[in-house]
Amino acid sequence: MAEPRRSPPAPAPASPWAARDRAGQRALKREAVLRCAAQLFNEKGFAASTLDEVAERLGVSKPTVYYYVDSKDQILFECVRTGLELLQQAIREVDGAGGRAIDKLVAGMRAYVAIVTQDFGMCVIRVGEDPLPPASRQKLRRMKAALDHEFRELIRQGIAEGSIVDCDPKLAAFTFAGALSWIGRWYRPGGGLEPAEIAEQCIRVLIDGLRAHPDVAVPPARAASRRAA
Amino acid sequence: MAEPRRSPPAPAPASPWAARDRAGQRALKREAVLRCAAQLFNEKGFAASTLDEVAERLGVSKPTVYYYVDSKDQILFECVRTGLELLQQAIREVDGAGGRAIDKLVAGMRAYVAIVTQDFGMCVIRVGEDPLPPASRQKLRRMKAALDHEFRELIRQGIAEGSIVDCDPKLAAFTFAGALSWIGRWYRPGGGLEPAEIAEQCIRVLIDGLRAHPDVAVPPARAASRRAA
Repeated sequence: MAEPRRSPPAPAPASPWAARDRAGQRALKREAVLRCAAQLFNEKGFAASTLDEVAERLGVSKPTVYYYVDSKDQILFECVRTGLELLQQAIREVDGAGGRAIDKLVAGMRAYVAIVTQDFGMCVIRVGEDPLPPASRQKLRRMKAALDHEFRELIRQGIAEGSIVDCDPKLAAFTFAGALSWIGRWYRPGGGLEPAEIAEQCIRVLIDGLRAHPDVAVPPARAASRRAA
Repeated sequence: MAEPRRSPPAPAPASPWAARDRAGQRALKREAVLRCAAQLFNEKGFAASTLDEVAERLGVSKPTVYYYVDSKDQILFECVRTGLELLQQAIREVDGAGGRAIDKLVAGMRAYVAIVTQDFGMCVIRVGEDPLPPASRQKLRRMKAALDHEFRELIRQGIAEGSIVDCDPKLAAFTFAGALSWIGRWYRPGGGLEPAEIAEQCIRVLIDGLRAHPDVAVPPARAASRRAA
């Protein structure tokens, strides 16, 4: 299936070097470096991106960039970690809000789409931990596994309370993670539809399915029926 | 969401250099080079893969590999092209078989999963055209767009015939393309579930949804209801 081209260059964030108040600006400047790098990685891919270009986009020198970060690898690690933390925080908030598991799941899906269509969340999907050395990769994979666990747990709760159809929670979680993560790959800011509208259409398919009516019977797979026979 | 680690090294295909009958073996040998490279790219990523390793796995010299292919870029192009051709052929067969659009769509989804869990199809998903020069990238993107068009067309037909729920065909196609393509990313041969079983569970969610009963109401998004008001 076609994936529309990567985003056109997003406008670089307003440079915090322009700010007059210098107190407590270090964290803000570091975040600006990370966000600018995340945008670059998302547009061009990790391998093709350079810290020279990050510096250029921010209007600062390369040594200035190195004052805030150690290496391109460290930047990617921080970008992906930040994206995963946003996702974890969202699912924890959704879970803490109470209510039925299916409503939590839908709220979690909405938050997921909102995050993977922004810089750090998009970086989780488009770049991810693959280019990093083993130790960093492992840390980020552990965070992903924890997130995955939260979603599976919601599905398990939904099945137990009768709001979610009886299914394999692992495969169901992979199914919607795939559908929602894909949005982070093809979404272009300013490309027509807003993330919240995309999320609603996609979630509707995942919650209600594509079949028009329950009486539109779908033939079972030949292999599966042979196995069942 | 966690994506399980990449596959462990798949067994290299039986080397056709061992074959005694030499007539007409060139195409077979070239295909063996491509398939071996696809496996390597899928396991290690494109950047980390070398033609030395392809030669080593096939038990031949590097010049022998160069007798069949010109470059690593050409190999990737051929692998992705082959994967996309398999997908195109499958959807054409499904479409030619006749019947209702929803049944064609389900048959097309099954074929999609079968292909993206094998070497060339997996290469479309895990590596894709991104590392290639613009001209090759464009050719492959055109093939993807044509494939995408076929799936959207099936959804349009299904909506018209009343077997598929009224939805945005583009977003519905992206939703299931994401869910099914994701399988090509996390699937590990020998990892427990067979592709056909994974496909059935995933397709069931996409066709029937996660909601246990139509009367399990799901609250609309706050932003969406505000916009509708």
